[in-house]
Amino acid sequence: MEFINITGQVEKIVEDSGIEEGLCLINAMHITASVFINDAEPGLHRDFQEWLEELAPHAPVSQYDHNTYEDNADAHLKRQIMGRETVVAITEGEIDFGPWEQIFYGEFDGQRDKKVLVKVIGE
Amino acid sequence: MEFINITGQVEKIVEDSGIEEGLCLINAMHITASVFINDAEPGLHRDFQEWLEELAPHAPVSQYDHNTYEDNADAHLKRQIMGRETVVAITEGEIDFGPWEQIFYGEFDGQRDKKVLVKVIGE
Amino acid sequence: MEFINITGQVEKIVEDSGIEEGLCLINAMHITASVFINDAEPGLHRDFQEWLEELAPHAPVSQYDHNTYEDNADAHLKRQIMGRETVVAITEGEIDFGPWEQIFYGEFDGQRDKKVLVKVIGE
Repeated sequence: MEFINITGQVEKIVEDSGIEEGLCLINAMHITASVFINDAEPGLHRDFQEWLEELAPHAPVSQYDHNTYEDNADAHLKRQIMGRETVVAITEGEIDFGPWEQIFYGEFDGQRDKKVLVKVIGE
Repeated sequence: MEFINITGQVEKIVEDSGIEEGLCLINAMHITASVFINDAEPGLHRDFQEWLEELAPHAPVSQYDHNTYEDNADAHLKRQIMGRETVVAITEGEIDFGPWEQIFYGEFDGQRDKKVLVKVIGE
Repeated sequence: MEFINITGQVEKIVEDSGIEEGLCLINAMHITASVFINDAEPGLHRDFQEWLEELAPHAPVSQYDHNTYEDNADAHLKRQIMGRETVVAITEGEIDFGPWEQIFYGEFDGQRDKKVLVKVIGE
């Protein structure tokens, strides 16, 4: 399990889009991953990991019907708690963040390539 | 509890809209239901149901203050975990799906009519 | 913990925007708060509070790595369950609500100012 700060990369895409007023969708392209907004504090990220493991434990893998050819059912559950996507506002060409808001990619099944979709609309 | 794959119906609406670049909002119109994106694997859907029942059990119904005239408090809680809505990108006239992404309507209080709102914006 | 019904204020902003067809993003600007859509029923709100306290207990505060200078790790977890934001459709100048849908601001760390962002796009 790993949380990667993608704020800078999303900001670059918004800047390059030239859009001044609009919305920006950021979503994980894997169904065992999340995009979410929260604090960039390493202690909190450890808390998230421990908490998700309690709410949707990986082991024993046999507890899940999904785990026949795969063993990642818990990753699908964890992603529902953390969410697939986030939508942010763009105002005067910049993402309209509250204090401490940072965008993270959360991977719950480590064997996957990390892919994020960023879509900017507006004018 | 039931999960219905609505991907084909949403794709048809997006196609009919003629929109090439934009966003599509899909939300449940009932507050005891969800729209979410995950895997179309029946074993996983059974896992979701069992897991939601553990996190927000239906019985005993008396454990919830909401259950005076109704007995569906747990359905309101389950819907918070699974989410009310999803937003997807439209690129070159098609929904921009990652691998295995499918859109589901989840009903947690079986006595309701199923109603979903799909809104497409862009150009 | 407190849930504030902000539906009327959001409706006013949508009306003032003059937008007839579009999307409206409503998000909490604090990472220990949520914006979500559910029922305006006080019993259910008590159920939400008790349930969130079970899933992500505040005490003992020492159970969370985040709680060194702060003691609000549980508020960050609760906000992940309830969600940061919601997106609603605007049709013929009005928010396209299902029956009983109301928009709430949920605060999980009471010491913060309450700030919500509302962004309306469309035409």
